[in-house]
Amino acid sequence: MDVGFIGLGRMGRGMVASLLRDGHKVRVWNRSAGAAEGLDGATVVESAAEAFRGEAAITMLADDAALRSVIVEGGLLDGAERPGLHLSMSTISVALSRDLAAIHARAGVPYIAAPVFGRPNVAEAGELNIVCAGPDEAVARAAPLLDAMGAKTWPFGPEAPRANAVKLAGNFMLISAIEAMGEACAFAEGHGVPGADLLDLLTNTLFASPVYKGYGASIAANRYEPPGFNLKLGAKDVRLALQAAEAVGVPMPFASVLRDGLIEAMAHGDADKDLAALAKVSARRSGRG
Amino acid sequence: MDVGFIGLGRMGRGMVASLLRDGHKVRVWNRSAGAAEGLDGATVVESAAEAFRGEAAITMLADDAALRSVIVEGGLLDGAERPGLHLSMSTISVALSRDLAAIHARAGVPYIAAPVFGRPNVAEAGELNIVCAGPDEAVARAAPLLDAMGAKTWPFGPEAPRANAVKLAGNFMLISAIEAMGEACAFAEGHGVPGADLLDLLTNTLFASPVYKGYGASIAANRYEPPGFNLKLGAKDVRLALQAAEAVGVPMPFASVLRDGLIEAMAHGDADKDLAALAKVSARRSGRG
Amino acid sequence: MDVGFIGLGRMGRGMVASLLRDGHKVRVWNRSAGAAEGLDGATVVESAAEAFRGEAAITMLADDAALRSVIVEGGLLDGAERPGLHLSMSTISVALSRDLAAIHARAGVPYIAAPVFGRPNVAEAGELNIVCAGPDEAVARAAPLLDAMGAKTWPFGPEAPRANAVKLAGNFMLISAIEAMGEACAFAEGHGVPGADLLDLLTNTLFASPVYKGYGASIAANRYEPPGFNLKLGAKDVRLALQAAEAVGVPMPFASVLRDGLIEAMAHGDADKDLAALAKVSARRSGRG
Amino acid sequence: MDVGFIGLGRMGRGMVASLLRDGHKVRVWNRSAGAAEGLDGATVVESAAEAFRGEAAITMLADDAALRSVIVEGGLLDGAERPGLHLSMSTISVALSRDLAAIHARAGVPYIAAPVFGRPNVAEAGELNIVCAGPDEAVARAAPLLDAMGAKTWPFGPEAPRANAVKLAGNFMLISAIEAMGEACAFAEGHGVPGADLLDLLTNTLFASPVYKGYGASIAANRYEPPGFNLKLGAKDVRLALQAAEAVGVPMPFASVLRDGLIEAMAHGDADKDLAALAKVSARRSGRG
Repeated sequence: MDVGFIGLGRMGRGMVASLLRDGHKVRVWNRSAGAAEGLDGATVVESAAEAFRGEAAITMLADDAALRSVIVEGGLLDGAERPGLHLSMSTISVALSRDLAAIHARAGVPYIAAPVFGRPNVAEAGELNIVCAGPDEAVARAAPLLDAMGAKTWPFGPEAPRANAVKLAGNFMLISAIEAMGEACAFAEGHGVPGADLLDLLTNTLFASPVYKGYGASIAANRYEPPGFNLKLGAKDVRLALQAAEAVGVPMPFASVLRDGLIEAMAHGDADKDLAALAKVSARRSGRG
Repeated sequence: MDVGFIGLGRMGRGMVASLLRDGHKVRVWNRSAGAAEGLDGATVVESAAEAFRGEAAITMLADDAALRSVIVEGGLLDGAERPGLHLSMSTISVALSRDLAAIHARAGVPYIAAPVFGRPNVAEAGELNIVCAGPDEAVARAAPLLDAMGAKTWPFGPEAPRANAVKLAGNFMLISAIEAMGEACAFAEGHGVPGADLLDLLTNTLFASPVYKGYGASIAANRYEPPGFNLKLGAKDVRLALQAAEAVGVPMPFASVLRDGLIEAMAHGDADKDLAALAKVSARRSGRG
Repeated sequence: MDVGFIGLGRMGRGMVASLLRDGHKVRVWNRSAGAAEGLDGATVVESAAEAFRGEAAITMLADDAALRSVIVEGGLLDGAERPGLHLSMSTISVALSRDLAAIHARAGVPYIAAPVFGRPNVAEAGELNIVCAGPDEAVARAAPLLDAMGAKTWPFGPEAPRANAVKLAGNFMLISAIEAMGEACAFAEGHGVPGADLLDLLTNTLFASPVYKGYGASIAANRYEPPGFNLKLGAKDVRLALQAAEAVGVPMPFASVLRDGLIEAMAHGDADKDLAALAKVSARRSGRG
Repeated sequence: MDVGFIGLGRMGRGMVASLLRDGHKVRVWNRSAGAAEGLDGATVVESAAEAFRGEAAITMLADDAALRSVIVEGGLLDGAERPGLHLSMSTISVALSRDLAAIHARAGVPYIAAPVFGRPNVAEAGELNIVCAGPDEAVARAAPLLDAMGAKTWPFGPEAPRANAVKLAGNFMLISAIEAMGEACAFAEGHGVPGADLLDLLTNTLFASPVYKGYGASIAANRYEPPGFNLKLGAKDVRLALQAAEAVGVPMPFASVLRDGLIEAMAHGDADKDLAALAKVSARRSGRG
């Protein structure tokens, strides 16, 4: 397919590589120049508008502000040439997704929310898990793109914001797993058991899953650099989850604990460490930090 | 080996079956009669003292009170005939394990703490994960028994109470996983996404591990009976974890949230439901219970 | 002084009455008509712009959105006639106050943040406690107005947003007091002690202060209507406090608990009850609701 | 009256002084010698048994263990000479009070639970607030003693443990007030407002009560020594409250936050500081500690 791709961070670059590998024709654009280097086969365009056209446009930006800036404030939906569909893959708020769905409907551009689970190397391999919600017909047309980027696409019906809610729920569970490991390790250490030994047992048995193994390894090694997923981005996702929860009347005490812990971590200089550094908070609170 | 086994609850019966299958000679005793029915090949004895002798004695009782009653108040360590070692496999407090280690040392009976992870069917299959700590020499002698009951024995050194700390840490993480799923489902439902759909995605990807799959299935089906692991026993384990954490100066905010949620669940009649019923608390709090 | 007053809710009407009583000349405006009824002596004007001029303009609006709509989106600071100073008395976010301080500085209109503590009857009596921050010279000019409305003005220096931070801190402490009473009463009731008896003791001794006596009386009587301070407005203030806390890296676990409890209260239909109805959450959680 | 008094800590000494001032005849005993020095007019006896007789015996000990040791393990209720009533004024668990009520009933000695609110100087002045529950007839006989020690006696009916529940509820509210001030101050400091200025405003207006003024002054001055009420004793009371809450099915999220904060405070060396040092935890968590 002829597709435009906006947002060439580590995740975006991996996704573009997967699209190219599958034979798609990709125009790429990034706010800061130079991000497209090494993406052999992609066509670098000069403006977001040139990327936002063709059979499909894909956006993979850092946060609400970036997406809002490019799409809404950039006036992309008012342009003469517009894409056949917009595959919006950033992790953003449910509220912004709802706004975007409405704006796209008025502009006559099908809007699909398709946030992903997976780290940059998984994106590079085209093995992401993609959470997808949007109009059936548009989702069907986007299938070749989704297949190129993902190991599996998980459909959540026609209402786009639901995919964003699912993504936030998943990240909330992921960060909860880190907090649970952090507290468990502080507890174990207090009783003379190295946290690494505890995690070796648990992440190879009851909790033998990617999230526990991956973050557990960082915690066991007390190694939080270079970051795979920045702690401050995790804090942003918890904030979005709390806001979306409040909007529909759902208390989330675990998310509240995460919020307080992440703020504490950032107040102690760990904003740009890996999210697993949340575990340091439990150690510090117990006087072992 | 010639072994006595005290405590024939669902877990204990499965463990005895595994011992018999491996050719061990097992004398069994249970406080209430009739519990040994169906354990063909086991020798039912009339008193705890008759079980607490031979090459090894194994205890698998419900809680601190039961173990203390049988061993300490029952005066088993003062008897003329005593076992070659005591394999203490109940989930008990770190403090009681410390007391027992001291009492056994005075009595000259090697004490091994060996709590387990696994449900009754796993015990039956001899596939438990056994957390083991105690004197090296005694642990070596107990190996044939541990091998009969477990898929793997995880060694945690010579100080017995550490195994109990590890077990409590594991159960804390397990119940935290349930709470995280409960909050995530309430959040998803608030946004129109069935909790079952959310969990189908997450427990098959990021969280594809036994704990998430097992408890996730109960939550997805909103089915909490018959219980696999009674909610009130989970509440007891959280209490033990909090006490042991306080004893070594470790705050555990997630455990505190679990405590409050489990109390709320019991106050609403779910004490004897499966532990997964903790998820109902999140639903109720959001007005969807 | 010649003063314009925007916002005639229950608080605003009381404040206008106090200004008139002290001999000030007051032009009043409210978004919805009819709100000025009974304010004998006040001059009702037809537009916010007519109120936002003279020696001083006072705003007392419900929230960020209302204030932003009238002042910023309404373009009041671009008008030809502008007031000698703006006394901004609404309970708003620290962030909006910072924005407004900057906008006013550019427009050359001195901006004073002066949120208040006190219920409508206290406003009517001119006995509010006023938290005041802004340029010294402007604050000095506003003194006759502050004296008319307040029992005492508490100065917090020249940076206006600090007064808003102080107001949010105060409301946080107030709602924390309600939660503490709610939990204490659920605890007491569980032990057979009527909550009213517990509060009678405590609010007449250790906690003999206006907040405890006032909200304690509502809780003791289990009477939450008519509302003095709407629960949903309290929830808004907690949200503003949490946002402002996150902005400066301060975890607030009590505020997080309040957030979850207030969301639960609203999910059960108590958004428009008095804030004291937060105590019902503790009762419900313990199965006595 | 002819009264024996057991427990001469700072509180106990003040209470004995008040009894002597009112003309009562007081035999005193303390586990460690020398504690009676300066209590002119009191008769020092050699054993707890000699104090536990006469018209009334009063106990004022540090905790459950001390009271249990003296009364139960010391066998005082089995003695030939026993007091006309036992006024049990220590802050103890509800569960122990229930046990003691039963034991005393069997021994035929009326048992009154009468824990107090007030610091040592208040005890010295005979101005305590006394929470009192026990058999009506015995309470009537104890009136002269209660009047000597207290400004007011608050009756809570015939079931003694209720008075202990009330005392724990009060201490829970007191420590919650400290936590709320601690968080509010960290918040204010983050926004450039000195905590002392915030507390000056709030403890003289909305929160103008003894608890807020007293602990607020310590927090404002960041001065936690010498301790008036040791932080570790406050931690003990929160633990007792949480246990008593769990026993009757009442979740207490604020108490859980207090528990975690107090453990953190002790893990950082503040166990023997004044309870107000809990506020340091909020400062430390925000990177300002």
